[in-house]
Amino acid sequence: MKLDEYLKTVAAKVDMEADEYSKAVDSTLQKAASHLLVSGGKRLRPALVLLSAESIRSGASEDIFQAALALEWTHTFTLVHDDIMDGDSLRRGRPTVHVVWNEATAILAGDVLYANAFEYLCRVKNATSESKVIAVQMLAHSCHELCEGQQEDVSFETRSDVTLEEYLSMVRKKTGVLYAAAAGIGAALAGGDVKQISALYTLGLNTGIAFQIQDDIIDLLAPSEVSGKDQASDLRENKQSVLAILARDGGIDLSAYHKPDLSKEEIADAISLLETSGVLDKARGMAEKLINDSKAGLSVLPDSEAKTLIMEMADFFIARRY
Amino acid sequence: MKLDEYLKTVAAKVDMEADEYSKAVDSTLQKAASHLLVSGGKRLRPALVLLSAESIRSGASEDIFQAALALEWTHTFTLVHDDIMDGDSLRRGRPTVHVVWNEATAILAGDVLYANAFEYLCRVKNATSESKVIAVQMLAHSCHELCEGQQEDVSFETRSDVTLEEYLSMVRKKTGVLYAAAAGIGAALAGGDVKQISALYTLGLNTGIAFQIQDDIIDLLAPSEVSGKDQASDLRENKQSVLAILARDGGIDLSAYHKPDLSKEEIADAISLLETSGVLDKARGMAEKLINDSKAGLSVLPDSEAKTLIMEMADFFIARRY
Repeated sequence: MKLDEYLKTVAAKVDMEADEYSKAVDSTLQKAASHLLVSGGKRLRPALVLLSAESIRSGASEDIFQAALALEWTHTFTLVHDDIMDGDSLRRGRPTVHVVWNEATAILAGDVLYANAFEYLCRVKNATSESKVIAVQMLAHSCHELCEGQQEDVSFETRSDVTLEEYLSMVRKKTGVLYAAAAGIGAALAGGDVKQISALYTLGLNTGIAFQIQDDIIDLLAPSEVSGKDQASDLRENKQSVLAILARDGGIDLSAYHKPDLSKEEIADAISLLETSGVLDKARGMAEKLINDSKAGLSVLPDSEAKTLIMEMADFFIARRY
Repeated sequence: MKLDEYLKTVAAKVDMEADEYSKAVDSTLQKAASHLLVSGGKRLRPALVLLSAESIRSGASEDIFQAALALEWTHTFTLVHDDIMDGDSLRRGRPTVHVVWNEATAILAGDVLYANAFEYLCRVKNATSESKVIAVQMLAHSCHELCEGQQEDVSFETRSDVTLEEYLSMVRKKTGVLYAAAAGIGAALAGGDVKQISALYTLGLNTGIAFQIQDDIIDLLAPSEVSGKDQASDLRENKQSVLAILARDGGIDLSAYHKPDLSKEEIADAISLLETSGVLDKARGMAEKLINDSKAGLSVLPDSEAKTLIMEMADFFIARRY
């Protein structure tokens, strides 16, 4: 199966479960909790849980499907709470939960999704209790780190001197650890040994960091027509993206571009400056190294279609253009 | 050991752990997360976890101490989030987390405590993985119900026709299920059988509901000098307390008392009205029945000092005057 077909199949299954969840109970809170869940999304974390399980034991992804949902529910919980904190009113083309209802309901909606995630992990079939405890530990640890990462991200907004080390630490927590948990949980529940679980956990961690670096690159390069977002918003807002940090470290002054309205020409100038100075290549190189190291680490796994798909997925994380 | 001595010992241990937690990591988020934890509190849920474990197996409370912390951390998480939702600026005599820092930090602080709770459950010593999975399920289920309960409580604020059934359902979720989880988790981790776990879970559930009924009674009866809170605040605000609901059901009109300023005489009048009409006795009777049924259910446990202390604790829940 091709990666894009696989991802579509997983997304369709998760969409269906989200849809059922939204209809299961007639309470305001459940409606609010399912609002963002049923708004689509790439469902990459569930796909990684399932592929990871399948790479350990053929057929395991059926058994541990509830764990895939646990990861998507967790991701959604963080988005619902992040939207409150960031005051964002739109997400996936729909008004955010705190806008449709109110902040109190949005806080609780996130909290319910959070609880559901742990309930789902315990419901996995054909997995040992030992592996479930490992899964719970990984998810809880990730949530803990995610909160730290979000806190750091918010604190970066009022700074213009964030170091590369600080950036990578924040991204590891905010994006890396949940991908790490996705891969690690899939491996653990499918009965992987310590080496296999560790290799997949590390792959999730590193590909998650690479994913965020690629996001920063896309923000600058992708025209609005392609991405559906404002082009170069990080640059306009002087956000401490990997590009901003590498540029500063290289003595490149981007301050002329820190203004709300940038013309197409100005954006092209900035891109050209970051290309010729090697900043963009440096960022691309960082992401590539993370992906290549992750893939190399999978040598502890037997060859399988699932393993191939995981490696393709890692490549896709940095190949995507929007 | 006497109950009050036991509770003091547990509270001192939990206080010490909270203190260590607050010093463990130097991050804004950890400081915010520990702010309310180190502000004291009765630590009744940890005590119930430990007594419950001890009633199953002598010495078990030492092994599963981390589970006691998990329950206190969970309780604290709900308070931090509730304070944001209710816009409360003081708790245990200190400014609330969102007041000291800001809402974003308070949301994250609650989320971190929530994650910690699940991490702590997995760290318990000398317990089977099976029992840890049961403990995680109970905690996650409680958190889910707690959110529903809080949502219902908030929705009651704009209503004056809440039924006794709706009230009891809300109180079961908002207060009962976490006490139920405390007792059930202690029993499960200590190796209790299904009957024992179930009896202790039910005891926690019912005593939690009785606790809230007693809280409603205290709100009316306890003079500010004793409770440190405004006397009869529920009555002033026409809150749908058990007394308000039983009074309405009995055709008793309390509307003259729904005003911000009530004199001592007016409060005394209202108390007298609710005493002579039997409303207060009815509420007391409900709480007593819940406690007595719970205690009777403990016949599946062997006699022990811990079992006696649990029964005394249940009695204390409705004997307390503030």
